[in-house]
Amino acid sequence: MKSYSIEPIGIAHTPYKERGQAPRQSIYGKEGQGEIEIFNSFIEGIQGLEKYEYIIVLFYFDRISGYSLKATPPGEVISRGVFATRSPARPNHIGLSVLKLIKAEGNIIKFSGVDMLDGTPIIDIKPYVRELESK
Amino acid sequence: MKSYSIEPIGIAHTPYKERGQAPRQSIYGKEGQGEIEIFNSFIEGIQGLEKYEYIIVLFYFDRISGYSLKATPPGEVISRGVFATRSPARPNHIGLSVLKLIKAEGNIIKFSGVDMLDGTPIIDIKPYVRELESK
Repeated sequence: MKSYSIEPIGIAHTPYKERGQAPRQSIYGKEGQGEIEIFNSFIEGIQGLEKYEYIIVLFYFDRISGYSLKATPPGEVISRGVFATRSPARPNHIGLSVLKLIKAEGNIIKFSGVDMLDGTPIIDIKPYVRELESK
Repeated sequence: MKSYSIEPIGIAHTPYKERGQAPRQSIYGKEGQGEIEIFNSFIEGIQGLEKYEYIIVLFYFDRISGYSLKATPPGEVISRGVFATRSPARPNHIGLSVLKLIKAEGNIIKFSGVDMLDGTPIIDIKPYVRELESK
């Protein structure tokens, strides 16, 4: 099957400079705030985003090289398949966070619930609509 | 900023052969069932997935070429930024569905809530843990 190329639409600015500082899931870091800077050529794409309380952000784990098909979640002792975990060392290195939107203005989206490292490439943003997700 | 290459880990088998047949959001198609076939080199990665009731599936909108920074959601008349919609004609063409897991066995994951077209490339699977998402 063919492979696909993805191009970052923005970059995260967060308080976490390296692995180990960032919380493992965004809920644990819900006090922390961060920003997403949208690149110029994509700014028009965030118009209307401010009406949502939460957003889904897809990002690229750019500090990880390679992957393992097994991972052991924090606090557990037995490994399982990487797709049954949120491990960053996963095929395609795509991370997902649900973030609380504070403000979207110009090319800057302010949010809380940060769990991304500073400088993380952002590859997509989607509105989070609880009714559609939770079924 | 550099671009990244992503490689499908599997392929969806669904009843929807072309655009217009698939429901717009997975909730509307919750009766419909489908399967994800995991490619051989990634099978080990789904071990343990069966304990989750719902899974997050990231897939590639491979029937779409190009993108538009504005989109008009179904039933609305005013366009807004594509990142404030679930439009498939988005930068990086990555779709997200939360699916109800029926069974994971061998290299086949059976699910309901299908909204992907038949043959859609799958690029990631993550456990859906409501407490972590909904904050």
